[in-house]
Amino acid sequence: MSNAAQLQPVLDRIDADFDNSLERLFALLRIKSISADPAFAGDCKAAADHLAADIATLGFATEVRPTAGHPGIVAKLNGSGDGRPHVLFYGHYDVQPVDPLNLWHRPPFEPVVTDHADGRKIIVARGAEDDKGQLMTFVEACRAWKSVTGSLPVDVTIVIEGEEEIGSKNFVPFLEANKNDLAADFALVCDTSMWDPNTPAITTSLRGLVYEEVWIKAANRDLHSGIFGGGAQNPIRVLTRILGGLFDDDGRIMIPGFYDGVKDLPPDVLAQWSKLDLTPESFLKPIGLSIPAGEKGRLLIEQISSRPTCDVNGIIGGYTGEGSKTVIPAHASAKVSFRLVEGQQPDKIRKAFRDYVRARLPGDCTAEFGDHSSAPAIALDWNMKPLAAARRALTEEWGKETVLMGSGASIPIVADFKRTLGLDTVLVGFGLDDDNIHSPNEKYDLQSFHKGIRSWARILGAFAETPK
Amino acid sequence: MSNAAQLQPVLDRIDADFDNSLERLFALLRIKSISADPAFAGDCKAAADHLAADIATLGFATEVRPTAGHPGIVAKLNGSGDGRPHVLFYGHYDVQPVDPLNLWHRPPFEPVVTDHADGRKIIVARGAEDDKGQLMTFVEACRAWKSVTGSLPVDVTIVIEGEEEIGSKNFVPFLEANKNDLAADFALVCDTSMWDPNTPAITTSLRGLVYEEVWIKAANRDLHSGIFGGGAQNPIRVLTRILGGLFDDDGRIMIPGFYDGVKDLPPDVLAQWSKLDLTPESFLKPIGLSIPAGEKGRLLIEQISSRPTCDVNGIIGGYTGEGSKTVIPAHASAKVSFRLVEGQQPDKIRKAFRDYVRARLPGDCTAEFGDHSSAPAIALDWNMKPLAAARRALTEEWGKETVLMGSGASIPIVADFKRTLGLDTVLVGFGLDDDNIHSPNEKYDLQSFHKGIRSWARILGAFAETPK
Repeated sequence: MSNAAQLQPVLDRIDADFDNSLERLFALLRIKSISADPAFAGDCKAAADHLAADIATLGFATEVRPTAGHPGIVAKLNGSGDGRPHVLFYGHYDVQPVDPLNLWHRPPFEPVVTDHADGRKIIVARGAEDDKGQLMTFVEACRAWKSVTGSLPVDVTIVIEGEEEIGSKNFVPFLEANKNDLAADFALVCDTSMWDPNTPAITTSLRGLVYEEVWIKAANRDLHSGIFGGGAQNPIRVLTRILGGLFDDDGRIMIPGFYDGVKDLPPDVLAQWSKLDLTPESFLKPIGLSIPAGEKGRLLIEQISSRPTCDVNGIIGGYTGEGSKTVIPAHASAKVSFRLVEGQQPDKIRKAFRDYVRARLPGDCTAEFGDHSSAPAIALDWNMKPLAAARRALTEEWGKETVLMGSGASIPIVADFKRTLGLDTVLVGFGLDDDNIHSPNEKYDLQSFHKGIRSWARILGAFAETPK
Repeated sequence: MSNAAQLQPVLDRIDADFDNSLERLFALLRIKSISADPAFAGDCKAAADHLAADIATLGFATEVRPTAGHPGIVAKLNGSGDGRPHVLFYGHYDVQPVDPLNLWHRPPFEPVVTDHADGRKIIVARGAEDDKGQLMTFVEACRAWKSVTGSLPVDVTIVIEGEEEIGSKNFVPFLEANKNDLAADFALVCDTSMWDPNTPAITTSLRGLVYEEVWIKAANRDLHSGIFGGGAQNPIRVLTRILGGLFDDDGRIMIPGFYDGVKDLPPDVLAQWSKLDLTPESFLKPIGLSIPAGEKGRLLIEQISSRPTCDVNGIIGGYTGEGSKTVIPAHASAKVSFRLVEGQQPDKIRKAFRDYVRARLPGDCTAEFGDHSSAPAIALDWNMKPLAAARRALTEEWGKETVLMGSGASIPIVADFKRTLGLDTVLVGFGLDDDNIHSPNEKYDLQSFHKGIRSWARILGAFAETPK
């Protein structure tokens, strides 16, 4: 029976087995694999072991392999030698910290299916979307193919990491070390979003990221503002003055050279994008906002996907407890990140930011910097053959034309796959803008999980029909 | 024997009993009377009970009396009816929180005498200076007079509160409630500093204080900057922009109307101050700084005592833990305080600050405000009779001319005494700029404690010689 003929029984199997798929996802969601906090290192290892054991039940040759940090997983069901396409699927089992915990409506590691405000069914837990729910759509699609046909329609290698949320510092060495086991024709990543809850999307460009931390230091100790106030420099004053000058009145970033190399969208793409229904009403209203905060004169969709940005992600200094304390602190610090677009080089942006800070530093103050991560922007080839196959399969599953979109987020792994393994990547995901990833009450639509599994089943079938 | 003749035996007694004075201070310093943290409410009560019991041993009629917060102490050894002056002494037994604890070289509530870098002997503990060490100089001076002469040279009422470090919100009602027991000719406060380690000072003006907290809110939840970055407003961006604009390039505060009513110093005072040796070298170098941070064109001594100031005492927003998180927070907040001088009204300054913030608030953002405390500036009468007596006594003890100085700090109780009890106040203290009050490793010079006791013994004797 051809793969095409087998597809319907595979989809039927997915529907019939969906409750079990959900239970397998829940088992993974219950593991507190927070990569950022060393206290959860054991949970990260447990998540890797659990997931590897689950994938092994599908017939994959599966190993949990060490890194300098949390372990990775390599699982192979390939080597058929019959010239079929060979895909390398990537996901990550680690999740973001859960603070502030008091804003969660339920414990973050006790997954449930519940009702969203507008009646959608949702899975709520830390990692429900990012990336446990997403990666399990692929695993469950493989399970259905294996269960119905005894094999997969294409050769598959799965690689899963445990440090995506903390910058994947050990993942490139891991790719290098396991290079021979990771050969494939192209890569698949399931860590992106749909266009809207009913419109599938493939992400064809990704913003890059530079993430800096800056510490401003002044006096050699905390001071009492009654004695020193007015005479001694206050590092919060210095830090807010520097950060407060990052934007002009039109929302442009004021770091000299920041926009060097940034190109405007081609007129045809801009025309296509301006017809899309991404409006402040649709995009900002659900989060309680109404006014696009980016550069004036740009479409909102440009602001969030094709234009570079800057956000202060955290700031702290002085007394932040209850009540008041008349202290002039010895130091203050901020975490500042930049989303980059094609044409910007992370190293240059990092240097430009540090130069900008140093140039504004008054006497008596020092600035120290920390480098959390950097990745260039990615623009994928819209004419890749597997992309066309995936697009067709998604459109069939969802009954709506698949949107090829730019994403504002950074997935540094895409550049790493190209550089280390020579692979292009197809980015298909089923997240939604209201999934609260990295926030309290993270969720994944039940439909995203269900139709996501069905989508991957179709995509794998479509790849099998596509000449390499 | 006249009071004057008895003075030398009293001073001798202080010297002979000094080790015991120190042990009594240590017993008080061991009590963790942190008023800001409800977890230490029991310790505050314990400190009040302990101190009241100690004062009672001097023959004072002593009571620990409740307030809506931590209790106060009223102790009376007066009513002689012979027309002697009657003084009301004020101190506070509560102390500041000890965070950051890791910067203390020793546990903050285990007092020791140790060597300062330059060889001075110092008492190290939270509260060593502010205000346990200072208030005990007065108590021990009374003890010596009582011990040697069987009585005190003037009538004395002592009032001690336990909420000075948290704004004394319950102290004015306490004064009102105990008004009849607190009648006196004038008040004494021991919560200020010397001019330098060997030069005594009386503080004759005090800056006022307005302490505000501001919360900037934007989206209805924390957002992922990969999805929303560039499109959604970031409250840290808004807050830093507002706070970063508080000062112009010359260090002037940019809030409209902030300087209304502020007068320049009289030329003769300015001439006297410019001859004092308060230099960046002497004042700022010990804290690791070199450049006066206040308004350009003003003396450093003006910047820290006669000019109004603004300090951001705390700021927090977004992710402030280890590592990185690409979050756009829903809110950010800051604690901002203003030191006021004569001519400025706290209510007007508070309103001007709020107006300033609101005027700079972009669409989609809201600002909420909290009021932590406010007190007007105080200018005392340089020609008060008891001030002259105290000045003479201090000069005799220290062998150097007593400086009459303005203080940058706020002691709201001085205004409360005037308003509630009709009393003027003489501010004598033995703190030093390097005492680290409100900071880790708070200390009090052993000489400040010892000669502070001797100073009060002399001052009480001098008051007895002064016609009311």
